[in-house]
Amino acid sequence: MTPVEDPADPRLADYAGLTDVALRRRLEPAGGLFMAEGEKVIRRALDAGHPMRSMLLTPRWVETMSDLITRTEAPVHVVSPELAEAVTGYHVHRGALAAMGRLPLPEAGTLLSGARRVVVLEAVNDHTNIGAVFRSAAALGMDAVLLSPDCADPLYRRSVKVSMGAVFSLPYARLTGWPAGLATVADAGFRLLALTPDPAAADLAEAVADAGGGRLALMLGAEGDGLTERAMRASHERVRIPMAHGIDSLNVAAAAAVACYALGSTA
Amino acid sequence: MTPVEDPADPRLADYAGLTDVALRRRLEPAGGLFMAEGEKVIRRALDAGHPMRSMLLTPRWVETMSDLITRTEAPVHVVSPELAEAVTGYHVHRGALAAMGRLPLPEAGTLLSGARRVVVLEAVNDHTNIGAVFRSAAALGMDAVLLSPDCADPLYRRSVKVSMGAVFSLPYARLTGWPAGLATVADAGFRLLALTPDPAAADLAEAVADAGGGRLALMLGAEGDGLTERAMRASHERVRIPMAHGIDSLNVAAAAAVACYALGSTA
Repeated sequence: MTPVEDPADPRLADYAGLTDVALRRRLEPAGGLFMAEGEKVIRRALDAGHPMRSMLLTPRWVETMSDLITRTEAPVHVVSPELAEAVTGYHVHRGALAAMGRLPLPEAGTLLSGARRVVVLEAVNDHTNIGAVFRSAAALGMDAVLLSPDCADPLYRRSVKVSMGAVFSLPYARLTGWPAGLATVADAGFRLLALTPDPAAADLAEAVADAGGGRLALMLGAEGDGLTERAMRASHERVRIPMAHGIDSLNVAAAAAVACYALGSTA
Repeated sequence: MTPVEDPADPRLADYAGLTDVALRRRLEPAGGLFMAEGEKVIRRALDAGHPMRSMLLTPRWVETMSDLITRTEAPVHVVSPELAEAVTGYHVHRGALAAMGRLPLPEAGTLLSGARRVVVLEAVNDHTNIGAVFRSAAALGMDAVLLSPDCADPLYRRSVKVSMGAVFSLPYARLTGWPAGLATVADAGFRLLALTPDPAAADLAEAVADAGGGRLALMLGAEGDGLTERAMRASHERVRIPMAHGIDSLNVAAAAAVACYALGSTA
């Protein structure tokens, strides 16, 4: 545990420019790291087996985190709130940040072999939405999430935070090729249900009931655009959540929650 | 339709300081107005019968809105984007704002007499969450929303926007007295279900099935705090959404969507 007083200290390099989304999107996956923010999230990341590279704490968090400081061999940098802000670019009101190591992602096939209910996301680029979908999917009993190659990073700081750490509890993998990667899911015995607001689609609850307990994969697209036509063509069935009061759609986080509930409650 | 060039022009008074939440919270309900932002929301507000007090447009929106301009007798102020920003305090990227008149809210008893499924919100103070709950509740077939006296205003600009105009389609009322107002709901023959993450509560789906098609009121509290103990004591039954993967709760918008779906699909 060492105090650091120079914002340019190279030991703080992992924490520099945290508000520069474009920079962090490039730097973090390439460097094999991600940022955990706040006591709870840091503990959940550690419990999930992620190695700690280092921790940055403001003085008032040292006592709360003392068990972690004892347990870890990673360097712990103690800095003033002003220095934390100078380095990261924002006011770190949670007072504790950790640079954590990524673990190799499992293969989609490995995840699918042990799963009965999965969520497949296409081009969900918004970190808040990715985090929200993980939180709901984990809470509502999905077994795994599969991401199209162009989905945003579930371990980006904002996703981790919005997911309340669910990105550590719910296993996920990236499909290679799109929509070709969907064949991996279908070949594993999953019925692919493509969620759409299209009134011509089947009622989700009926589609789930028709599957009679078989393996189901729920496909979701990004806010606004939804699933692409080519992804829908690769599905077995188009499904919708019935709408009332002339409302044409739910936002993607609400739709994901409802659909996961509809799948999970019959699992 | 008149061009306005002075940000201090008294005709623009309704649009001044739109980013000052505290000011607008006080001023709008007292003045009997609310702000509708963007073409879609303005049209939905008009379709719902709200009178227009005035409209503020940037020049490129004049043509798109020409049918409304012809139809309304309200003054239409055409201003430059820079002037719109100077008056409102933010960059009005949707280019169209309308000051609309409020309608008298119905009595809770009136709404309840024609309803079978209602949502009751306690102390939901966040405008984004209020909007999200209205959108989901409307889409998923609830008949009305009842608000505790300390809930935020569904017609606040942010709520209207997040609801995608659902605040105009789904009727709502404010309960007077809390939790005493809940007696109005129970007296109208509704079974009050209090949503909580408490693992000791009954499974929501089972509680809905047990009600056998009877009238149901779903009670929801604010993000983080949830329902107060006194509100829960005034309910008939505490219900939960079953959770997996060690996740302890959903966020309030996701929980509302799932619970409305569970209620709506049996209505």
